[in-house]
Amino acid sequence: MTSLWRSGMPGRIRPAPENHLAADTLDEAMKARRRFMGKALWMGAGAAAAAGGARADIGQGDPAILELPEHTRGLGQPVAARAYGLPSQWEKNLQRRESPGLTRVAAASVSFTPLQGLFGIITPTGLHFERHHQGWWDIDPSRHRLMVHGLVREPRVFTMDDLMRLPSASRIHFIECGANTGMEWGNVAVPTVQYSHGMLSCGEFTGVPLATLLDICGIDRAKGGFVLAEGADGSSMTRTISMQAALDDVLVAWAMNGEMLRPENGYPLRLVVPGVQGVSWVKYLRRIEVGDQPFHTKDETVHYIDLMPDGRHRQFTSIQEVKSVVTSPSGGQLLMDRGYYNVTGLAWSGRGRIRRVDVSADGGRNWRTARLEQPVLPKALTRFNIDWTWDGSPAVLQSRAADETGHVQPKINQLRAVRGTRSIYHNNAIQSWKVAASGEVANVQVW
Amino acid sequence: MTSLWRSGMPGRIRPAPENHLAADTLDEAMKARRRFMGKALWMGAGAAAAAGGARADIGQGDPAILELPEHTRGLGQPVAARAYGLPSQWEKNLQRRESPGLTRVAAASVSFTPLQGLFGIITPTGLHFERHHQGWWDIDPSRHRLMVHGLVREPRVFTMDDLMRLPSASRIHFIECGANTGMEWGNVAVPTVQYSHGMLSCGEFTGVPLATLLDICGIDRAKGGFVLAEGADGSSMTRTISMQAALDDVLVAWAMNGEMLRPENGYPLRLVVPGVQGVSWVKYLRRIEVGDQPFHTKDETVHYIDLMPDGRHRQFTSIQEVKSVVTSPSGGQLLMDRGYYNVTGLAWSGRGRIRRVDVSADGGRNWRTARLEQPVLPKALTRFNIDWTWDGSPAVLQSRAADETGHVQPKINQLRAVRGTRSIYHNNAIQSWKVAASGEVANVQVW
Repeated sequence: MTSLWRSGMPGRIRPAPENHLAADTLDEAMKARRRFMGKALWMGAGAAAAAGGARADIGQGDPAILELPEHTRGLGQPVAARAYGLPSQWEKNLQRRESPGLTRVAAASVSFTPLQGLFGIITPTGLHFERHHQGWWDIDPSRHRLMVHGLVREPRVFTMDDLMRLPSASRIHFIECGANTGMEWGNVAVPTVQYSHGMLSCGEFTGVPLATLLDICGIDRAKGGFVLAEGADGSSMTRTISMQAALDDVLVAWAMNGEMLRPENGYPLRLVVPGVQGVSWVKYLRRIEVGDQPFHTKDETVHYIDLMPDGRHRQFTSIQEVKSVVTSPSGGQLLMDRGYYNVTGLAWSGRGRIRRVDVSADGGRNWRTARLEQPVLPKALTRFNIDWTWDGSPAVLQSRAADETGHVQPKINQLRAVRGTRSIYHNNAIQSWKVAASGEVANVQVW
Repeated sequence: MTSLWRSGMPGRIRPAPENHLAADTLDEAMKARRRFMGKALWMGAGAAAAAGGARADIGQGDPAILELPEHTRGLGQPVAARAYGLPSQWEKNLQRRESPGLTRVAAASVSFTPLQGLFGIITPTGLHFERHHQGWWDIDPSRHRLMVHGLVREPRVFTMDDLMRLPSASRIHFIECGANTGMEWGNVAVPTVQYSHGMLSCGEFTGVPLATLLDICGIDRAKGGFVLAEGADGSSMTRTISMQAALDDVLVAWAMNGEMLRPENGYPLRLVVPGVQGVSWVKYLRRIEVGDQPFHTKDETVHYIDLMPDGRHRQFTSIQEVKSVVTSPSGGQLLMDRGYYNVTGLAWSGRGRIRRVDVSADGGRNWRTARLEQPVLPKALTRFNIDWTWDGSPAVLQSRAADETGHVQPKINQLRAVRGTRSIYHNNAIQSWKVAASGEVANVQVW
C-alpha cells in the first residue's frame, strides 16, 4: 500500500441514484458536509472537536446532533427481536433490481446484484442475482427427489435426506451468468455497474460431490462421457456437462453461505459447476443422466451460444474467462472532491486463482498493480483495492486481471476483432469508467 | 476420505426439537421414509424407480406425489419479487434463539446461532448470534461519529464518509463470546449445540485498519501502549486493547458478509479484534482513546474475568484458545438407523490456523483425523467432516482441535484442574455427545 491517503483530504463519492443512500439523504449529507468541511476539521480542527470530551458530535454545525442521542440514553431492542435478522432501515435502497424491458415476462428475467454498494467477496445472500426462465418456486424439500440414471449400473432416486447424509464438501465460488456484461458488445452501455456486471455473485456452497453420486450409481467409464442436468421448474432447464468436470469439482449443493439455498437460487437443490456460466448451475435439480455424447438441448443449441462475425454460432462455450471490474468509483457516481480515493473492485476467473490485477486511471496507458485481499481462492471472486489521487482532470478508470493459467483480460476491441459485435454471451473485456472534470462517472468504451 | 459410505445405507438423523424441521413434519417424514425404505430403494430398487423415466417421484408409496408438481407445470414468481431475499418457508424453524431465564432483561441477553443446522464456515448474517448489554439500535449513519483521541498528536472526529473513503481491508474471522460454553464449567449441561456453543459466528469483515486511523492521528509510540474502544449504546461498553493487537490486524469495520453491518451487530461501525473474545469487538463504535496503561473498565475488571479455584480472579484473558465441536450428530438429535453418518463440525483458534482435528467415537480412547474443508484461514472457523458407521451400540462423539502454534484443545477435567468449576468464561474443553443405543444424542461430560 502506498501512502497516497496521507497526501490530503480523502475524496467523497456521491453514489449512483440507485445506490444505498436515497438522493434526498445525499443532498442533505452534501450540505451538511460542506458546512462541516468549512470548519476544516479533517486538516486539523479535530483537536478542538475532541476537546469536547465524550461529545464526539461537536462541531458539526447541526444543533440537533449536539443532543445526547436516544441510543446512548435508552434501552434498545431485545435479543431475538428478529429471529432471522435483516439489514438496517438506512440500507433499504441497496437492492437487487430488474432491468425494465430486458425481457417480456418478469418471471423469465434477471435481477442484478448491486455490486457498487458491496464489500469483500461474499455476496449477501439476500442480494444474490436472480435469473429465472419460468419463475421461482419454494419447493417442499420432503417431496423433492433427484434421479440419477442413463449409462449407470444402478439408477437411483435420492431424497434430500439421502443426499444430506452423504459425505459433504464446502467451497467458495463465484457464479456469473454467461450473459453478464452482454449489453457492452455493441455500444449500448448501461449506466451503472449493477446493470453492466451485476449478474455475478459469490458464496460458500455445501453439497455432495457429483462424483460421489456417480460412484454410488456406477458410471460406465468407457461410454459415459457426458452428464445432463435437469431442473424441476417449468422451464425444464437442461444442460450438458462433460464427465471430466462432473468428476472434478461439481457439487450437488443444498446450502449457500451457511444455510439452505434460497428459493430464488434453487432450493432445495442446485448444481454447482465452478468456473462455468450460471445457466449450468441447474436450479431445482431433479435429474442427472449419464450419456455418451452432448445432449444438444435447447439451452445449449439455441440459447447461450456465441454468434460469431461470419454468422455461424459457437456452442458449448462455458468457462467464464478471466475478468474484473472496478466497482467504485463506477458509473453513475459523482466524485465530489479532488484528492484521495480507494479504488476497489472484483476479479475472477473460471480457470483458477487470480494472480494479479492492474489498474489504470488514464484509459490504459499506465498501469499500477492493485493489492488483493485474502483469501484468493480458485474460481472465486477476489477483492482488489488500490490508492488513487484524483487531480480534477478527466480520467478513465480500468482494471485488468490475469489468472494463474496466464490468461489476461482483453480490451473490448481485441475481443470484438475475434467475436464481432452481435454476441450476447461471454464478454470478459476490460471495463472503462470515465471520470469527467465535473466528477461525473460514466460507462464508456475505450480502445 | 475413507469409503465408509459404501458399506451400506446412510443413517438418518431426526433433528433436535428446535432444529430446522418442525416435529410434526419430521414424524410425517419418518412414516413416509419407513414405507419408502420398505421398498429397499437405496439397496437396489432404484432401477425400478428410474424406469419410470422423468417421473422421479415414482415408488414413494405416496399417491399425492405421483402427480406432476405445480412447479413443473406453472409459471413461478417473478425476479425481484423480493428486492432483498429471505429463506424458504420450509426453514422457518432455523432461528437464533434466546435461552429463557439466562438474564433478567431480554435487552441484556444472548441469542444463540443454530450451529446444528448450518453448513460450511460462513454464518448466515441473519443468524449471527447476538449479545447486547443494553439492547440494539439502528443508528443513522449520517449522524454517527468516531473520535480518536488521547495520546495522539492530532485528535480527530471521523464521519462514516471519512472512514469509508480510506484504504480498506476485507478478512474472514470468527467471533466468539468469552462466555460461550460457559454452562459447561459445572455440570449444568445444556441440551443442544445451539445453546452450548452458539455464541459463535464467522463472517467476512470489511473496514479500515485501526493502524491507519492511529497513523493519521499520530500515536505517541513511546507512551501509547493501550487503546480504549467505546460503544455508543447505553451500556457504554468499554474495553482495553493492547497497542500490539491494535497495530496488527484490528479493523474498524462497517461491513459483514458483503453488506453494511446489521443493527444487531453494531451498525454502522464495530471493532473487529481477530482471535479475541466478542466483547472486545465493540459495537456502535464511537470512541478510540490511546493511553499508557490498561483502562480497567467495568467490563474488564468486574465482568469477563476468570474466577480461579483459589478465589482470585484473572483479568485480561482475551484470546479465544483452540476449540472445536461436533455440530452433527449433536445433543437433542436422534439417530434413526445404524449405518453411515457424516460427522461434521467446526474448529477455530484465536492464535491462527487450525492444523488438525481428530474425532473419537468412543469417548477419547481412539481418534481418527477428520478432513478439513478449504479454505483454512487464520482466526476463522474451519469446517471438518469425517465418516462414521454407527453399529447401534452406545458411543461418545468428541472432536479435538490443534492449531498451527501447537496448542491442543484440552479435556474438561484438564481445564478444571487449573481453572476450577466456578468460571463463566473461556471454556475451550473437548465437547462430548453421548449416543445411546436408542439413538438419542445427549450432552455429557466425559473425562
